[in-house]
Amino acid sequence: MQIYRYPLFNSWPDITKRPSADFSDKLETVRNVMSKIRAEGDAAIRKFTLQFDHATITDFKVSAAEIEEAELSLCLELKNAIQTAAQNIDIFHVAQKFSPKVIETMPGVKCWQKAVPIERVGLYIPGGSAPLFSTVLMLGIPAMIAGCRNVVLCTPPGRDGKVHPAILFAASLCKISEIYKIGGMQAIGAMAYGSESVPKVDKIFGPGNSWVTAAKQFIANTECAIDMPAGPSEVAVMADSTANPAFVAADLLSQAEHGPDSQVILVTTEEQLIKDVVKVMGKQLKALPRAEIAAKALENSRAILVRDVEEMVALINFYAPEHLIIATKDAGELAEQITNAGSVFIGNYTPECAGDYASGTNHTLPTNGWAKSFSGIGLDSFCKKITFQEITKDGMALLGPVIEVMAEAEQLFAHKNAATLRMKN
Amino acid sequence: MQIYRYPLFNSWPDITKRPSADFSDKLETVRNVMSKIRAEGDAAIRKFTLQFDHATITDFKVSAAEIEEAELSLCLELKNAIQTAAQNIDIFHVAQKFSPKVIETMPGVKCWQKAVPIERVGLYIPGGSAPLFSTVLMLGIPAMIAGCRNVVLCTPPGRDGKVHPAILFAASLCKISEIYKIGGMQAIGAMAYGSESVPKVDKIFGPGNSWVTAAKQFIANTECAIDMPAGPSEVAVMADSTANPAFVAADLLSQAEHGPDSQVILVTTEEQLIKDVVKVMGKQLKALPRAEIAAKALENSRAILVRDVEEMVALINFYAPEHLIIATKDAGELAEQITNAGSVFIGNYTPECAGDYASGTNHTLPTNGWAKSFSGIGLDSFCKKITFQEITKDGMALLGPVIEVMAEAEQLFAHKNAATLRMKN
Repeated sequence: MQIYRYPLFNSWPDITKRPSADFSDKLETVRNVMSKIRAEGDAAIRKFTLQFDHATITDFKVSAAEIEEAELSLCLELKNAIQTAAQNIDIFHVAQKFSPKVIETMPGVKCWQKAVPIERVGLYIPGGSAPLFSTVLMLGIPAMIAGCRNVVLCTPPGRDGKVHPAILFAASLCKISEIYKIGGMQAIGAMAYGSESVPKVDKIFGPGNSWVTAAKQFIANTECAIDMPAGPSEVAVMADSTANPAFVAADLLSQAEHGPDSQVILVTTEEQLIKDVVKVMGKQLKALPRAEIAAKALENSRAILVRDVEEMVALINFYAPEHLIIATKDAGELAEQITNAGSVFIGNYTPECAGDYASGTNHTLPTNGWAKSFSGIGLDSFCKKITFQEITKDGMALLGPVIEVMAEAEQLFAHKNAATLRMKN
Repeated sequence: MQIYRYPLFNSWPDITKRPSADFSDKLETVRNVMSKIRAEGDAAIRKFTLQFDHATITDFKVSAAEIEEAELSLCLELKNAIQTAAQNIDIFHVAQKFSPKVIETMPGVKCWQKAVPIERVGLYIPGGSAPLFSTVLMLGIPAMIAGCRNVVLCTPPGRDGKVHPAILFAASLCKISEIYKIGGMQAIGAMAYGSESVPKVDKIFGPGNSWVTAAKQFIANTECAIDMPAGPSEVAVMADSTANPAFVAADLLSQAEHGPDSQVILVTTEEQLIKDVVKVMGKQLKALPRAEIAAKALENSRAILVRDVEEMVALINFYAPEHLIIATKDAGELAEQITNAGSVFIGNYTPECAGDYASGTNHTLPTNGWAKSFSGIGLDSFCKKITFQEITKDGMALLGPVIEVMAEAEQLFAHKNAATLRMKN
């Protein structure tokens, strides 16, 4: 961990800098893979699956039998845990349902919004070193609550051509039956363009490595929508003398173990806390199976000593972390002052891992400073809001003259005429 | 207008096709302009303003005196109309305010969302043939209600170096004081990167020509967020024998006059209506100052005769129009069945121009089929939702075992440890 003592404001951009996420070197490969999938469909997907995932897949779709088997093969303890998490996620996301309100802006002029599910959504669940079944819940549950008609899930097969049973179990809890053994860029291409096996979708969700991210950016704005720009995961901890150093160390390490490019920042008013955290983190690190990855991430991570609480809050809002843990006196009050963050964890007994898995909040969140302008995933992400309006003849008599004057000033006379004709009638 | 009688389902993709929006030929120029602005700031912006807008600007910022003058120079009738429209837009967007609800997903586990304004937003208002002061209201009012701290507006100067007074008046109604005389790609670059004169923003909003759209796509996902992908404006009208042909013709023409690439579609169950609309449209067209533009747009436009109401609804949802006018019996009931559209206008006395200007709904809407996955602009667009959670010691005792089991199954032992430590304490 790099330690900064009382950095000046003009050094903030430097000390809050993320590892750069430039995909320009990947663009040529992505373009090539995407155009092959667009032109050749399943044949291209099959070829790339062999090339990148070293698996030979004849039928991409996971069968009903495979899903049933998955449920039988999992231990009861894990199934119960997944079900409890699913229930909490369900409760929190059901509460996000939008209630339309009809607003009469003028007598006879009624306007309202309605949230309508996006019809066809694609969920990408990465494979790699661990089966991220928790992400299945985080995307699948809001898709189910929203009422999306077609939910497609793609996830890379192992070399044995199989998908981890916990992923299949989590998907079946979310009533997802269209699961395809396709990973990486080829999954993004399959869902963006559609193929013989995989239906085209309107929006693609989910995390992935830099190839997946580059592919998502490539298809966004032309083929379909994406959830948000992605980057390595990150946590910031705001702490004072009331923080527990062992808790802080554990929270920093749980972010660091995600990958060598994870970002971990501790901001505190207490010099002693930095010393204590560094010390206990060294001990905790040794016990971790992913110690090597976490140690690598810690090299790029920072402990920043600031003068007071105001500076602590300002620095955090400047950084806009994906996750923010507030381990201070009056943590709840400080949370009110946070304007840029993905998800905020208040107090010593609220670790980030609670939100990662089971408290009910979503764990798909804006990274890389995007918390300044993007929300994390929620029920909204699976809906679009359509506006409606209904005007009576009397309403048009009131509103018509306003429209006529404005349309004329914008030199749009057909617009004016559409109002005039109604008023004359 | 091209007329299609009872087209088969497999021809729908063809008859609902938009003019393609491929910006690849613009990419090199955009990249060049953007990198110059990034490197040279104001000097580059000044150079491009001379080159593209033929105006020599020393001070980009519109002065307070210019804004005061604008108000004095406008006629009272227009000012009153703009104020009435602003009031309706304000009423409709204030009603969109989000009320946080604290949800206790399990005893001791509290989660909630809070809508927080995006701090720095940039609004782009095109110049061109008409001063689009209505768009100032549509973007500026929700930004003001959201409470965005810095609101920057860029709009191209005329050759005389001035901005239309109606734009300045509308901006001052929205309490926007940072107005810059910068248009086109250079405006997008200025707001995305920041320069000596123009502050960098977190999200850019607003319509523009294909250069502006290409520039917005270029900076999205790397520099700042954008509102949505853009394309030419479009309207679809669903009509039966209860529709008024003159109203329908006027509505189709008010879309067609926007530009030669505007799309206009009439879907109906009544062959006679098509004949009547085409006839009256010919007459109305002759009276329009922008007749040439409208006639050009009509060449690419379509009247589609379908068998029944079900097919009419299905075709509209397949097309996903930016604007949809429903001029049928039971229009309100049909509106309930619409799942893909930006904004819906119900009944004979609800023309699209009402929503374009003054009813209160927003006119910045998804085009080009993006209504399948994007909402139009609303208060949400100027906020991000941050999630918060606060867990008690007892709450962690309940939730901890769930986290432990799931983290272990995902092989993330530091995550598990962050829960275990809290439970032991």
